[in-house]
Formats: sequence, structure tokens, C-alpha cells
Amino acid sequence: MQTSIKISAQEFEERRIKLFNHLQVEGLSGVVLFDSTYILYYTGFAFIPTERPVAFVMNASGDTAMFVPRLELEHARANADVDQVEHYLEYPYHVHPMEILKGTLEKLNFSGRIGVDTDGYPWILGYRGPSISEVTESQVTRVSEFIEDQMMIKSRVELALIRESVKWGHLAHTLLQRYTRAGLTETEVSQAASAEANQAMLDAIGPIYRAQSPFARGASAGYRGQIGRNAAIPHAMANNIAFQEGDVLVTGAGAPVWGYHSELERTMIVGAASDEQKRMFEHMLALQATAFEAIRPGVTCSEVDRAVRDYYEKHDLQEYWKHHTGHAIGLRYHEGPFLDEGDETEIRVGMVFTVEPGLYVPELGGFRHSDTVAVTEEGIEILTYYPRGLESLTIPV
Amino acid sequence: MQTSIKISAQEFEERRIKLFNHLQVEGLSGVVLFDSTYILYYTGFAFIPTERPVAFVMNASGDTAMFVPRLELEHARANADVDQVEHYLEYPYHVHPMEILKGTLEKLNFSGRIGVDTDGYPWILGYRGPSISEVTESQVTRVSEFIEDQMMIKSRVELALIRESVKWGHLAHTLLQRYTRAGLTETEVSQAASAEANQAMLDAIGPIYRAQSPFARGASAGYRGQIGRNAAIPHAMANNIAFQEGDVLVTGAGAPVWGYHSELERTMIVGAASDEQKRMFEHMLALQATAFEAIRPGVTCSEVDRAVRDYYEKHDLQEYWKHHTGHAIGLRYHEGPFLDEGDETEIRVGMVFTVEPGLYVPELGGFRHSDTVAVTEEGIEILTYYPRGLESLTIPV
Repeated sequence: MQTSIKISAQEFEERRIKLFNHLQVEGLSGVVLFDSTYILYYTGFAFIPTERPVAFVMNASGDTAMFVPRLELEHARANADVDQVEHYLEYPYHVHPMEILKGTLEKLNFSGRIGVDTDGYPWILGYRGPSISEVTESQVTRVSEFIEDQMMIKSRVELALIRESVKWGHLAHTLLQRYTRAGLTETEVSQAASAEANQAMLDAIGPIYRAQSPFARGASAGYRGQIGRNAAIPHAMANNIAFQEGDVLVTGAGAPVWGYHSELERTMIVGAASDEQKRMFEHMLALQATAFEAIRPGVTCSEVDRAVRDYYEKHDLQEYWKHHTGHAIGLRYHEGPFLDEGDETEIRVGMVFTVEPGLYVPELGGFRHSDTVAVTEEGIEILTYYPRGLESLTIPV
Repeated sequence: MQTSIKISAQEFEERRIKLFNHLQVEGLSGVVLFDSTYILYYTGFAFIPTERPVAFVMNASGDTAMFVPRLELEHARANADVDQVEHYLEYPYHVHPMEILKGTLEKLNFSGRIGVDTDGYPWILGYRGPSISEVTESQVTRVSEFIEDQMMIKSRVELALIRESVKWGHLAHTLLQRYTRAGLTETEVSQAASAEANQAMLDAIGPIYRAQSPFARGASAGYRGQIGRNAAIPHAMANNIAFQEGDVLVTGAGAPVWGYHSELERTMIVGAASDEQKRMFEHMLALQATAFEAIRPGVTCSEVDRAVRDYYEKHDLQEYWKHHTGHAIGLRYHEGPFLDEGDETEIRVGMVFTVEPGLYVPELGGFRHSDTVAVTEEGIEILTYYPRGLESLTIPV
């Protein structure tokens, strides 16, 4: 594991070559990327996006550069796998960073159509500035579709990193379930489980560990506020409710490892489930099994979701449906393609998805497991190995 | 506090009236906002942005709507202060959400220039879709500058929320300092301090507490990886180093309360500071004092940073400079205006800034305090009240 746990310099190089080939095919004079995930993907440089623009640049000769504020200069020099690091002093400063970037692009012989992810740095956290087309007077073309398609297929090492993430998410969830008891609050249980799991992960992997994620700082498990009645609202926000007998809990656990994520979610019930809760729990398992069976190379994302939606319809569960079957996962905790009726992307070997059809029943609770699966030649491998059955997920009272 | 801790319906209404007046002045047929912070600001609806577009819409008659996926429908109905909640089933689905949004805009009589924050939902987390100008065939105008300017001036209640944030950041930092000892790791100390402070905050404020922040989930304090030599890299990422005598630690603490943030950072030294460390620490304090004195209504942000930069130059410290003096803070942990030589914004009563000039000395450490200050008629009130002196910030060995 030690030798394969990080993406190698060669793999970063191979990723950039694919992007370079795309530039050639499209006849672009170069590419400018601002998205922090894309920059991590092509250079290995992880940073927290702020109002100070950061960009990765590649020209039509394959020369690469990072463009960073003074603040990130040493950090980028030490970590970014590029030919050179250009920097500006500060934002806003006297000279706008986009003016300096313009100079960098000129030095690198950008002189025709330019590929971009967004036309200019996004206006986040108070940033204001001109677009790339304004500052360079060049035509820009979005290359995001190409990049998203490239990122969909995970390599052997990417899969190894996702497996590593699964392991620490599993630990966090094991502790979460172990510590959950009627009368305790979601916050005390999730903080205790997360802290212990994260410490174990850091002590196990050692000081080489890097989270490299804008979405999570370490291993964690929690409830997302989805307790009792709130559990019927899929993305409810936490509010420190005490567990009570009869609560349906929807959990979530994971860990970022060198930028990669996995997703593990379970429906747990505090005390004996009612008959209606049992019925919904079993339907939820059957919905997930339907998806597991449908995912294989060559079928479309749409077909998988269609199979799952057929189950909802056949069993008269449509009123409890709220979202599609799942989404891809990798450097981002959600990414495309989506296991959704409207996504005609063909499923291919190396894609990694969450599988998480849910049932949201007012006054009864939300019912959703989420597992992370990798697409193989034969179908799928379910990477998350946490128990799924009701008996295993009942909290004793 | 209980009665003023949340933004009132009247205050949300007043915010929307200002935006409405801007639409009138600009002759816009309406406005479409996708930014989650802007939506929270105008409607009180807090959500986590994903690949599923969410928008706030207001037309030229002042009618308002939220546009959300099915997943967020109940959540938006319960929390968004708008006339109506429109929804689409899912993304990607058969019909693209932007097509549904187009219908919503038509129903609301959008029929001329449209104000937007971004021309279309940003392509995050695998989202792909057309811009507003493409889907409506209307001309769009960016209204972000107006919104950013409006958000710069904090109301009485916003200041009360920032003060509340300061208090829990103070608690988290107090525990962080109390638990920091040579031989322990940054992770165990920051997890223990954060969990205890967060639990205390939740138990003190009670179940009405809401974080409503994409940047933080509760009270926390930590080191941001800025230990020993790493402390010279301002935004280094955490990596679980054990504290040693002689380390210079740059900390950070805060807590989100109903979306509002504060910033408290301190430079702490493990064991007795060396003469050079003492010298840098005192210069850092003097730099911060220079900024405190310079901030008052009527001066520009630029003048404040210029005064601080003069101090660097006068004392030959330029090589240790890496960033401007500070930034505004509120619903985002960084926002404009910036205490930066290039920002000519006039400072006004009600603005809230961080003040955090730093000195980054290779092999010695990083030296930075950050305090949150509110601009008053007379100058500033320093909201963060954590001790600043070296003696108070020395960790015994």
C-alpha cells in the first residue's frame, strides 16, 4: 500500500498528456484552469480556493505553469508537478492578478483560442475581476466536458485510494454505531466517533497522510440532522437532537485520502422497528439490490435509474421518492455521471458510483443506505462492506 | 440575546427591498441568483450547494421565488422567506432544470435584461448546463457588485451574531491553548478543544442553534498545519505533527452562528521564545497595532494597508511579508473589501474586518495574530478579546 497510496508523477504526466492531446485535437493555443479539483487532478497541488485566483496553465507545446499568489508560492513550488510557478503579489493589489496572468499567457505563446473551465476566475469570497476573454481578447472554449469525462474513469491507484477511504469511513461508522444510544445527542456521538477514527487513521497512515480535500478534513461519521422526523428531509442540516426510541437515523461516514472520497451511509433504528418501518427498510434494501444488479459495463446510467424507478412504481412507492439512484465519486464527494434517468452516459469499467435510492416517509423517517461501488468487467465490486441488514443496524434500547 | 440572535423577517424584507430598488434603477426585468450565500442573505434559506441548481428569483414587481430540486422542496418551504417555491424533479433528469427555470421566469414576467450573479449555474460537482442568456435569449447583467457592496455594511443584528461567534471561538481557543503541550499532536489537541467547545455552544444556545455555513459546522480551533517550520507557509494544510519545544504555532478559532463568522488567530510559542522569535513577535504586534490605529470611517482600505506596509519597510521586514493586512468577514470567512493597497473602498461604520498582518520567517516560524474588528463612528471596536502578549501565549514546557 505504501508504494501505491499516492498518485505517481508518471500518472500525473499521463493525465496532462491526455489534456494536451485534447488541446491539439481542438486546435487550442493552450488551456487555463481555475477549478481547484482540476488543478489537483493535473498537478497534485492541493489548496483551499479563496478570493486569490490560482490557475493551472498549459500551452500548445505542453509547457505547464502554476499561477499563484505570493502566499502560495513556496507551497506550489514544493507540491505542484509543473514546469514553472508564476506568481502575483496579492489580490486586489495595484495590478490585478488577471493582468499578470495575461503576461504569463503571452510568455507561453497563447495566441489563439484558449480552453478554459470558467471564463475568468469565479467571483467567490468577494473576488471581482475580468474574464479571460476580456483580458486576453481571445476566444475561449469550455474544456470542462473533456475533463469531466477524463476524470470519470478511475485508475488502479485511484481505486486503491478510494478503498483506503472506505476503510476509515468504515471505522468511523463502526464507532458511530457503537456509541449511539437513546438519550445521547447526535453531536456528542458523532464528535467522539469522528475524533477517534481520525486519530486512528493518522496514527496508522503516519505523517505522510494528506486529506487534500475541500470537502472534509479527516475521517468522520455523523447524522446530518436526519433524525426521527427530520430523516424525511434528505439534506437536513445538523441540530443536535437527542436520540429517542423509535428514531430512524440516516448516517454518513467517510474519509478523504489524497483527495479521494468514498461514501457509506446507513439507516439505523433506535429500538425495535415498527412494522411500517420494517416494510420501508426492506423496500429500501430491495431498491439498492435492484441498482447493484443493473450496473455493469455497457448499460447507460439512465437504464440503472429506470430499473430502480420501476421498482418504486411496481410497489407504489413513488410518493416517497426524492432523488435519483446515485452519483459518481472521486476527488469530489459528488461528481458525474449520475445514476439518473436523464443521464445517457454509458457505464464503463473504472467508474465509481454511490448507490443510494431512498424512501422518505413523513412522520416515519428517511430510509437510505449508500454504498460505494466500482464498475468491473463483470459488473460491480461493492467497496463498502458495512452490514446492511436491519438486525445489524438496530440500536439496542 | 434570544430575541435578536436571528435575522428577523423584517430585516430580510429590507434587504430584498434594496435589491428590488437596484433592479428598478438598472431597468432590469428581474434577478436570478445562484450563489448560496446571496440566497441565505436575501431569504434565510441555508443549503449545501451541489450539482443540483438552486436559485432565488425576484421580478420587477418584487415577487420572489425559490427554485429548488424536489430534494430541497420541504426544506425550502419551511425556511425560505419568499412568495413561492418552484421545483424541478432532479438533475440531470429528462428535462434540464434550466428549462424549468425558464418557465418560472416566464411566469414571473421576466422579459428584458436580467440581473444575475453568474450567467448560469456554475459547473460544480459534475453539473453541466446552459447559461441564463442561452436559455432565455435575454441579455444578462452582473449584479454581484451591488450585492457585495450591500453585504459589506453589517446591521446591529449581524454584529450581534458576529459577537456571538467571537465568544465561542474564544472558548475553543482557550481550550486549544490549555490542552497544547509538547509531545501531543495537533490533531488530538484540536479535536479535543473543538469537540468540547462545540458541545458547550450547542448546550448553551440550545436546539435553536444553526450553523448555516458552508465553511464550518460548529465551534472549532486548530493549527492549520502551521507548526514549526511549516508556520512560515500561511495556508499550509494539516498533517498531524507533534509539538516540540521551540515551535511557533499559528492557531485559528471560530464558530459559525446562523451563517456569520469571526476570526481569531494567535501565534503561540512552545517554551521560551528565542531572541529572534521575540523580536518578530513584537514586530507582529506593532504591525497589528498600526492597522488598528489606521482603521476608521472615511479612510480607504488602501490607506490602512499602506500604513502597515510602511512599517514593514521602515523596519526592513519586507522579505517576511506575504499578504495584505486583512479582509472583511461575515456570511463568508473571507469577503470584500480587503485591507489591501489596491482596494480603494472607503471604510464605513458597520464594516467588519480581520486585522492580521504576518511575518513569515524561514526556519524560524510564522508570526500572525488575527482579530476581528467592527468599524464604529470613532474608529474600531476590537471584537475578539483573547490575550495578545507573548507571555500569555507561551506554552509551558
